[in-house]
Amino acid sequence: MYKDFRSDTVTQATPAMRRAMMEAEVGDDILGEDPTVKKLENMAASLFQKEAALLTVSGTMANQIAIMTATRPGEEILLGEESHMYNLEVGGIAALSGVQARALKSSCGKFEAADVRKLIRKPGIQAPVSRMLCLENTYDLNRGYPLSPAYQAEMAAIARQYDMFVYLDGARIFNAALALQVKVSDLAQNIDALQFCLTKGLAAPFGSLLLGSREFIARARWIRQRIGGGMRQAGHMAAAGLVALETMTERLQQDHDNARRLAAGLCAIDERLTDMDLVLTNIVQIDFASVGKTAQFVTDALLTRGIKIKLIGETTCRMIAHAGVGPEDVDEAVQAIREIIR
Amino acid sequence: MYKDFRSDTVTQATPAMRRAMMEAEVGDDILGEDPTVKKLENMAASLFQKEAALLTVSGTMANQIAIMTATRPGEEILLGEESHMYNLEVGGIAALSGVQARALKSSCGKFEAADVRKLIRKPGIQAPVSRMLCLENTYDLNRGYPLSPAYQAEMAAIARQYDMFVYLDGARIFNAALALQVKVSDLAQNIDALQFCLTKGLAAPFGSLLLGSREFIARARWIRQRIGGGMRQAGHMAAAGLVALETMTERLQQDHDNARRLAAGLCAIDERLTDMDLVLTNIVQIDFASVGKTAQFVTDALLTRGIKIKLIGETTCRMIAHAGVGPEDVDEAVQAIREIIR
Amino acid sequence: MYKDFRSDTVTQATPAMRRAMMEAEVGDDILGEDPTVKKLENMAASLFQKEAALLTVSGTMANQIAIMTATRPGEEILLGEESHMYNLEVGGIAALSGVQARALKSSCGKFEAADVRKLIRKPGIQAPVSRMLCLENTYDLNRGYPLSPAYQAEMAAIARQYDMFVYLDGARIFNAALALQVKVSDLAQNIDALQFCLTKGLAAPFGSLLLGSREFIARARWIRQRIGGGMRQAGHMAAAGLVALETMTERLQQDHDNARRLAAGLCAIDERLTDMDLVLTNIVQIDFASVGKTAQFVTDALLTRGIKIKLIGETTCRMIAHAGVGPEDVDEAVQAIREIIR
Amino acid sequence: MYKDFRSDTVTQATPAMRRAMMEAEVGDDILGEDPTVKKLENMAASLFQKEAALLTVSGTMANQIAIMTATRPGEEILLGEESHMYNLEVGGIAALSGVQARALKSSCGKFEAADVRKLIRKPGIQAPVSRMLCLENTYDLNRGYPLSPAYQAEMAAIARQYDMFVYLDGARIFNAALALQVKVSDLAQNIDALQFCLTKGLAAPFGSLLLGSREFIARARWIRQRIGGGMRQAGHMAAAGLVALETMTERLQQDHDNARRLAAGLCAIDERLTDMDLVLTNIVQIDFASVGKTAQFVTDALLTRGIKIKLIGETTCRMIAHAGVGPEDVDEAVQAIREIIR
Repeated sequence: MYKDFRSDTVTQATPAMRRAMMEAEVGDDILGEDPTVKKLENMAASLFQKEAALLTVSGTMANQIAIMTATRPGEEILLGEESHMYNLEVGGIAALSGVQARALKSSCGKFEAADVRKLIRKPGIQAPVSRMLCLENTYDLNRGYPLSPAYQAEMAAIARQYDMFVYLDGARIFNAALALQVKVSDLAQNIDALQFCLTKGLAAPFGSLLLGSREFIARARWIRQRIGGGMRQAGHMAAAGLVALETMTERLQQDHDNARRLAAGLCAIDERLTDMDLVLTNIVQIDFASVGKTAQFVTDALLTRGIKIKLIGETTCRMIAHAGVGPEDVDEAVQAIREIIR
Repeated sequence: MYKDFRSDTVTQATPAMRRAMMEAEVGDDILGEDPTVKKLENMAASLFQKEAALLTVSGTMANQIAIMTATRPGEEILLGEESHMYNLEVGGIAALSGVQARALKSSCGKFEAADVRKLIRKPGIQAPVSRMLCLENTYDLNRGYPLSPAYQAEMAAIARQYDMFVYLDGARIFNAALALQVKVSDLAQNIDALQFCLTKGLAAPFGSLLLGSREFIARARWIRQRIGGGMRQAGHMAAAGLVALETMTERLQQDHDNARRLAAGLCAIDERLTDMDLVLTNIVQIDFASVGKTAQFVTDALLTRGIKIKLIGETTCRMIAHAGVGPEDVDEAVQAIREIIR
Repeated sequence: MYKDFRSDTVTQATPAMRRAMMEAEVGDDILGEDPTVKKLENMAASLFQKEAALLTVSGTMANQIAIMTATRPGEEILLGEESHMYNLEVGGIAALSGVQARALKSSCGKFEAADVRKLIRKPGIQAPVSRMLCLENTYDLNRGYPLSPAYQAEMAAIARQYDMFVYLDGARIFNAALALQVKVSDLAQNIDALQFCLTKGLAAPFGSLLLGSREFIARARWIRQRIGGGMRQAGHMAAAGLVALETMTERLQQDHDNARRLAAGLCAIDERLTDMDLVLTNIVQIDFASVGKTAQFVTDALLTRGIKIKLIGETTCRMIAHAGVGPEDVDEAVQAIREIIR
Repeated sequence: MYKDFRSDTVTQATPAMRRAMMEAEVGDDILGEDPTVKKLENMAASLFQKEAALLTVSGTMANQIAIMTATRPGEEILLGEESHMYNLEVGGIAALSGVQARALKSSCGKFEAADVRKLIRKPGIQAPVSRMLCLENTYDLNRGYPLSPAYQAEMAAIARQYDMFVYLDGARIFNAALALQVKVSDLAQNIDALQFCLTKGLAAPFGSLLLGSREFIARARWIRQRIGGGMRQAGHMAAAGLVALETMTERLQQDHDNARRLAAGLCAIDERLTDMDLVLTNIVQIDFASVGKTAQFVTDALLTRGIKIKLIGETTCRMIAHAGVGPEDVDEAVQAIREIIR
């Protein structure tokens, strides 16, 4: 049994989730008759103070549906250079929505207001129309920067000046809210639509929720059906999601603590391995350059010791704390790294 | 509790499926690490004698992925005028694949070979390229016609003459195989790719399997990810599917028997209500014109008696036999109709 | 030098057009500075009593831009089974707009109102949205049926009931207007947008005009630029178009007369060769089945005599009268056919 | 009559071109029967030493067709941050091809090899496929940097390592060839497909040529028809293009000389207005920041003196030398600027 620090996506359903899946009261959700799905969608809408919600299979699906819903072909989206939608959604923005992505540089997860303004197109016969600003919170799946409500409001204000739709990929928004000590609804303010994942830190096996206005979600539901995201007895999936929402959000503090513990342990080995100041949620990025090791070497060596971490560059790796790894696993990993890079 | 004859999509997971979902051994399927998903995909591929399989959330998703995988924009698909892909997939063929649908008339579920040949485009600078022939078996969700391996082979032979890809929407292929007394692998012969549903008659809560060559499935997997159809611990879903495949295919005979029982009951009321000769699987189409009733009237009246059927036209309705309704429910429905239309 | 009856698209610019091209006053039309283009667009808008017009390179371009302008992906278009947009625009409806085409049968160029109503989708979570009704006038490039303002109004009224956009492919609308003895603006009534060709009977070398509301044309202009249809000194092209509009519309009567002369000549050979009643504009369809000849045989034999006609089926051909062929050419063709099929 | 330095797109046809348009021998090019189009396509293919050529209405059309021809939806294109395709083609890459653009920074028109390698995606289930590398030569329509065959070869070599298609937007390739003192065929080496414009410096009213392998051009021709880029008697357009190719390429030296003269004049006013070292073809970029003027102020003031230049930023403008402006116009413009910014 490996200690798996590659991603919080490897978290597995808790016994309560498994039981909930088994016992779920269900109906045909494409016909709008699944009570458990409705309960989850209503709970999510209420929690984020949005008018309506839609269950999707994954965060990628929620993101792609959002774009298809809010744009027309030939329009343009501004998003982060390190964002999931730009790098890890198989070119869906262009392939599914016919929309051009325009990538923004960021510094510690934040775009410069001036950069955003600069990338918004002036109207013209040859110009795409800048339609959407996409934020991601926490930002950068190899960093996990939480972005404050104030920063989000600033970005949203710019977008609105140009009549742009503001979307938030909140795959790990509960991590952000916890780190910032705000409510998730604070992070949904000034946002036209957003999604969050039931998987990852919340440990459900699948599922995300897309949130927005009633009109937006109605259209999103129609588009979800087109890509085959409508399910029959989706209540089994929703039941696990309800348990995730009800019982797993507060325990994310342990993940953040474990990430700090991990970073501290690494810095005790060599201060240049990671930057403690950037470990704000559950993600730790490590650079083995200073100790003269490649990421491949370290990753392979750890694997033989039963520890999995994710290689992300020539000398860089990522480790994520989640429900499946505890403080003792962290300590074991630190010790193993210490020995390997000695 | 209603007797629900609207569709076999309302079937609910059996206790064994629910238990299997709870107990499933799972992993991160996007990373290719879910053993239960692999087991299901392998079992399906083996059963249909195809090289590879891919789990999708729904039949619509499998169909749409198949088209995106096998075509390029500006190409053309021939399919049935009553087919699911043409009528009930939200325009996905054009919206997702940029492909033009060209609809074929059918008679008792079959296209005329001459019609197929006629609709295949001659190459030309102004002509779309005819790329794909889509069959559906059973055909027509308001009829459920089973199509024989010989008929399929005839159609496939025409398509291949023009270098077209042959796809089979086998949402209810187990019904077809049973009615024809052939193996499902017989119905997968001469077919480049196909999908079948774990829901409907097989009663799983969600899930379909797309089958084809190794190369086709590899590309389909990439495209599934783009629309967000990749899931993390999909094994919970696959576990129910395994139970469906192992325990639910043979019991479809009961549905066929119940459909015949229903049709016979209706004919006993008035021979013009339905055509026994066309009830070959689990679907019964009823026309209330001969008794001077609208479909709306009958549907409403049945609802007050706790019976749901599907209105499909001015005077026509559809009833489907499935795991959730037994012979006694059939008899009750017949009796209710008898009283309503008297 | 061949007598070319294949199509009116082979017509060549008149000396006046050639001179106009040479002498045109021009500017950069992408910058909105070409006076001759503006003059043509204004003249066309005025003639058809529409708010605005846009010059395009071809009728196909105008048609495809119209669809891209008025629809969103996943919507549906109703159009004729024999229409140009469905058969001869390289699958552009799906490839460029992501829109599903739904083909209507016609009888002598007309759709049945009941058929149109039947193909309009009821709203539903699985249904495409019926967005556009496309008429073509004259209809069927192998027949050239003129459709009356009254018929068009009837079709438009149905479409509007369902909030659909009404588009008219008026490639040969001047032929229709002449045959019906109405003004082209009568045929533009009740129509949201339409296009007509400067080529074909009007003999300009290229160019079509798309007409509609100011808002529609503004968006269409933006979309024209995306496909590279914006031109720099387009006034050279527009200059020929102006001559076409000013001097060539009335002479279409000669084409209609010649088509009748041709049909009469053919009937004199054998009454079954063509149906005089269906020759209403400049197009004659001929079926050589009754005389036991294939279309290929006749076409080849005519070619050796310096006459070109278009093969359109096993035994059927099409001949079109246009500015490049006179009554004596018609007589020569009739005589040649007489000898060939004897 | 304005002295118009905004763009070389405002150039107007020469008397010889106008005469050629008038006298052109033409045919129906969609039927492949226009001798003048064929002559132009053959001449272009020969000049660039490519197998085949295709006439398009514009450079944008040629670029967009190239992408549609060589890619499939969900693939990715690397191109320059300042490139025409990314900024001035109305989002066509995504809207028409479903392809994601990924922008490269450049320094004096050149990408760093390391940057290119970094942006090429590693294959993965969530990754778009890097399919195409787009060069532009001259690069940056506000700079006009010529790129050497050696640089192009270096870029192409990287792309080929990853099995990517190499495309060149050579809208102003004759300017590049002249500045580098190489043949245009030298700049077409190592390139899979490219386009060049007959407008701009060559002064034809419209038209571009897309060049590539026979197979590529055959498919491109089919796609051109889909967007309505096929024309009937396109020979009138081609005739002007032939004159452009035969008589206008060598006179570009005057434009380059005039651009240098302009830059020198500006530097004589204030050295910070423009960087002589960057004026390598016919484009001059000017920054009025050093003299405390906004671009809007200067542009407006010049307009009142009958001189047009293009505002491109807060304090920056662009001037392009072309066939419509001579050395005396340059001197007049310099003098006017001198007075305005004093």
